[in-house]
Amino acid sequence: MPGPAFLRPVTILDRLLGRRLASSEDQQERVSAFAGVAVFGLDGLGSAAYGPEAALTVLIPLGLAGLGFSLPILGLIVVLLAIVYFSYRQTIAAYPTGAGSYTVAKENLGEHAGLLAAVALMIDYALNTAVGISSGVNALISALPVLQPYALWICLLVLALLTYINLRGVRESARVFLPPTALFVLCLGAVVVTGVVKIVLAGGHPQAVSPPPPAPEPQEQANWWLLLRAFAAGCTAMTGVEAVSNGIQAFKEPVIDTARRCLTLIVAILAFLLLGVAFVLPFYHVVATDPGKPGYQSLLSLVTAAIWGRGFLYYVTIASILAVLSLSANTSFADFPRLCQRLAHDGFLPYAFGLRGRRLVFTQGICVLAVVTSALLIIFNGVTDRLIPLFAVGAFATFTLSQAGMVRHGLKGEKRSHVSAFVNGLGACATGGALLVIVVAKFIEGAWLVVIVLPCLYAVMLAIKKHSARIAREIERAPHISLQPSEPPIAVVFVDSWDCVAQKALQAAYTLTPEVEVLHVEREDNEGELSKDWRQVARQSIGEAKLPPPKLVLLKSPYRRVVGLIVEHVWQLERDNPGRLIAVVVPELVDRWYISFLNNQRAAILKTLLLFNGHPRVLIISVPWYLERRTRARRAVRETSWETFPARLDR
Amino acid sequence: MPGPAFLRPVTILDRLLGRRLASSEDQQERVSAFAGVAVFGLDGLGSAAYGPEAALTVLIPLGLAGLGFSLPILGLIVVLLAIVYFSYRQTIAAYPTGAGSYTVAKENLGEHAGLLAAVALMIDYALNTAVGISSGVNALISALPVLQPYALWICLLVLALLTYINLRGVRESARVFLPPTALFVLCLGAVVVTGVVKIVLAGGHPQAVSPPPPAPEPQEQANWWLLLRAFAAGCTAMTGVEAVSNGIQAFKEPVIDTARRCLTLIVAILAFLLLGVAFVLPFYHVVATDPGKPGYQSLLSLVTAAIWGRGFLYYVTIASILAVLSLSANTSFADFPRLCQRLAHDGFLPYAFGLRGRRLVFTQGICVLAVVTSALLIIFNGVTDRLIPLFAVGAFATFTLSQAGMVRHGLKGEKRSHVSAFVNGLGACATGGALLVIVVAKFIEGAWLVVIVLPCLYAVMLAIKKHSARIAREIERAPHISLQPSEPPIAVVFVDSWDCVAQKALQAAYTLTPEVEVLHVEREDNEGELSKDWRQVARQSIGEAKLPPPKLVLLKSPYRRVVGLIVEHVWQLERDNPGRLIAVVVPELVDRWYISFLNNQRAAILKTLLLFNGHPRVLIISVPWYLERRTRARRAVRETSWETFPARLDR
Repeated sequence: MPGPAFLRPVTILDRLLGRRLASSEDQQERVSAFAGVAVFGLDGLGSAAYGPEAALTVLIPLGLAGLGFSLPILGLIVVLLAIVYFSYRQTIAAYPTGAGSYTVAKENLGEHAGLLAAVALMIDYALNTAVGISSGVNALISALPVLQPYALWICLLVLALLTYINLRGVRESARVFLPPTALFVLCLGAVVVTGVVKIVLAGGHPQAVSPPPPAPEPQEQANWWLLLRAFAAGCTAMTGVEAVSNGIQAFKEPVIDTARRCLTLIVAILAFLLLGVAFVLPFYHVVATDPGKPGYQSLLSLVTAAIWGRGFLYYVTIASILAVLSLSANTSFADFPRLCQRLAHDGFLPYAFGLRGRRLVFTQGICVLAVVTSALLIIFNGVTDRLIPLFAVGAFATFTLSQAGMVRHGLKGEKRSHVSAFVNGLGACATGGALLVIVVAKFIEGAWLVVIVLPCLYAVMLAIKKHSARIAREIERAPHISLQPSEPPIAVVFVDSWDCVAQKALQAAYTLTPEVEVLHVEREDNEGELSKDWRQVARQSIGEAKLPPPKLVLLKSPYRRVVGLIVEHVWQLERDNPGRLIAVVVPELVDRWYISFLNNQRAAILKTLLLFNGHPRVLIISVPWYLERRTRARRAVRETSWETFPARLDR
Repeated sequence: MPGPAFLRPVTILDRLLGRRLASSEDQQERVSAFAGVAVFGLDGLGSAAYGPEAALTVLIPLGLAGLGFSLPILGLIVVLLAIVYFSYRQTIAAYPTGAGSYTVAKENLGEHAGLLAAVALMIDYALNTAVGISSGVNALISALPVLQPYALWICLLVLALLTYINLRGVRESARVFLPPTALFVLCLGAVVVTGVVKIVLAGGHPQAVSPPPPAPEPQEQANWWLLLRAFAAGCTAMTGVEAVSNGIQAFKEPVIDTARRCLTLIVAILAFLLLGVAFVLPFYHVVATDPGKPGYQSLLSLVTAAIWGRGFLYYVTIASILAVLSLSANTSFADFPRLCQRLAHDGFLPYAFGLRGRRLVFTQGICVLAVVTSALLIIFNGVTDRLIPLFAVGAFATFTLSQAGMVRHGLKGEKRSHVSAFVNGLGACATGGALLVIVVAKFIEGAWLVVIVLPCLYAVMLAIKKHSARIAREIERAPHISLQPSEPPIAVVFVDSWDCVAQKALQAAYTLTPEVEVLHVEREDNEGELSKDWRQVARQSIGEAKLPPPKLVLLKSPYRRVVGLIVEHVWQLERDNPGRLIAVVVPELVDRWYISFLNNQRAAILKTLLLFNGHPRVLIISVPWYLERRTRARRAVRETSWETFPARLDR
């Protein structure tokens, strides 16, 4: 069907975003467990790149001795990861509608706990996007310093690209992001496997191809607080594990199985990479370097160089790590809008967040995330290191609440299981402990911001819920309707001068009601004009048409007010006519929207004032008059014109 | 009268800007010739501060020998000033409506010449504001370098202050700006008089109290091009002379006499100061210093120090010069809006520029000038030296066009005078010549910008004129109106769910017409809901009320579109019912405006699409439903409620 004029921009959107998808095409848009890794797993897998480094950086003061703790600490993290995995597997089955942590906490710990989890998640996602993009871009810049002045612009470009691809739909984003994900997993897996093989072949003493810098002299003895901080820092390797449970409805049927398989894949790859890296590190004497000092290199860069040397494969691996880091933001784009949709469904966010856009994704959520992220990137000028602790706080608060919820879930219902409750409880304690360590260790570095942002967001969403509940209560679906026959309204036609626009409005008013009042405001520059025209022109024609004569009301305006006077007059009229509707007829000259600002805005101001400060028995009626150039495109329409009118009124 | 709710913000405006003035209070707001100097003269008088300096800076390469040219050059400029004064005196009498140069050029040289003069003037005014403020602030900063980092902010603060005072009305701005103007004139006058007295007492060889730096070695011989450039540069001393002729209507009756007296005052003071300064300079051996080099001091600072020494009086004089420099922008605030008003009157600018605001000044013009100036200040970061040549170009283009117009004016009509035409012609040639020299000399420094900005502005205003002429032609006042009795419209009520809002809309539709269509879009999440409610609730009530049953139209939305479907349906309905009006009834939930963004925007989007892409026979009817909290304040109104309705519908 050839769309009408207003649909024209849609064809541009069609080209840009792809054709509009029918709601019934939902199934085709869903992703498999494998593709799901590229949509929901990039955050989780990306953390394999920075988790071990975060832990080992804390251990730098121990010198070479720190390496002995790499496998135990990362092993412990993998155990915790397993517990969390176990918990989210259950969550997926128990709450297949998605928004996992939020739903679990809400259903089991009450609405406030749920909202807390949701706010923590939202902060987590927004920060994850900013941190992911900027860390990827900053890594790129340390490789190509010539790009330094454009850092922020590159960040915003990556963000725009991510937003764009996500707006094109879930399947599209899976298709685009799968290749870099696969490359990353293959490369890093190959590094680990080669490393292990070399260790075995060399009888436990492999030679580094490109030896890492020597370990610094030990400055400290190992102590519990240091190890605890290393553990807590390493825990960032777990962020992103909750992602699958939030977006279950994006998976192919049977959703629960597919989502679980996807989660298993992500966690298995992540655990393999973490343990593998932790295992090979000591054999090649790779110690973390201080990010704040010259000569810094990322841990994975050192490991890859030690095992493979700095050849072609090294650069491919490093490139894939960079790509996955900046694309890890994609997980947020997949989950944040879905979380918003659940929150909108429960009234915590405006209704619009629950609407699926043309490509069956939640457009509003994606756009809000893009705006928030670009604001963060701009405020921090593309260097978001200071946000990293905050971001881990959000993730671990979510883990803790979610698992605490699953404890209660495990203890109730038919399929109650003490084992499951115990494991979840263990997980809640462990992640809660890690959260505590992170908050204490990173409080000065920025975690205090949580104390400000989290309660604010919480309060705002609670207020929105209250607001929407109040509205729903007030306009509740009518139990029975009681329509009554009633008098026609009193029409008030605002006439500025006696032109075609006014004439059409008056004619329209007469089709609605016989009781018409013509309202005119006399200003300095048009005094007496209308009443003269009125006597000469209007009265006669109205008489000929056998219409009841309208009442002509002339308002003086000593203070040059126009709109205010009209509004006051309308209210007075409403008060004076109890039980009657007052129809305010506003003649409007309509031009193309992009030059409409040149014309008089009085009609628009009048309508806005009447609407927002109006009285209940006042209706606002726009009678548009379309200018010639506008209507020329619609000749076909005009042919079937309002015949009872003079032709020129048909605009 | 206790104003209704929407008027509440007005009381804030009352406090801020003063009470609204009646149009009849116009006379009290007008200014005397004396006060007019503070309103229209600051630009002209301020140029006494930079005119001589501009001329002598060009003469620096001549060394001490340059001083010999100071009196001849400035004398010539004063002669030119006298010619221009003579010309504008006539202009005031001939065109007392104001907008002098524009009106003169338009009436005598045609619309295009008039528009050219207007554009040149507008550029002149906008640049004058920016240059005036920033030069004043920069002078302040060279006195107090600690303020350096806040330069832009101080500029914007001064601009805000000027805008605010001007929005409070002409009389108010005269009251505020008169004291610094008087101080400036007294101080500089006293400097000149003291200087002359000392010269006489010392027999022509006075001793400088604080001697100026020695003149540099001569590097060039005097030549015509150098002297011509010095003359052209010194001509900036004349800018601002046209100001009075643009704002004649701001003067007390008899306007022509008062305006002329004001112009005489300004020109006399200016001529006295220019000649006085030019006369005393050589006796004290004061040579201009290079603004680009260290040790720079303004010429007036050197003269004052030489005559009075650097005591208290010196600092008072310098402070008054700074004040007048940054307040010279006030002339633009007085004239730019008046010029815009004339242009709006002739259709070159939107209608709104012609409306007088609450304090009888042209609010829109003042605000636009403030916005343009702040943009200029921000773009040039508060350092607008590069704009100065441009600004002189605008002023001299205006002079030339205005005087050329007066030549023709002098040759026609009853009171034709060949002498007047000759003097004006002489003036036009002289200012035109100066313009040419300025353009050639300053082309590289920025005058080329005129070549871009001037034609653009010209084209835009011409386009606006064409646009408004087209509209006026299309909606021309109706020669006779022909109203006809016609059928009631078909009302289309958009119902999303069967709540009170929809119910009120349906009831309202029945008061307008018996032919009602209920339109509902079925989405994934509300399928079948409305038709069920419809059968159970609505049909019965409509039957009981003996109203004709509405037609229920259910639209399927496989692509989740809602507004688009409604619009298409309405257009189809219009096509299918030739000669009928279609009244689209839009139920609207109205909240307080500042939280309305939380609610569904569908009604607003629907109204906008229907209006801007609508068809001529479609009316748009808002039926607002007011939420409880909003209406609580209007108990009194509700008591006289729409009695035929259930009470709860009266929102």
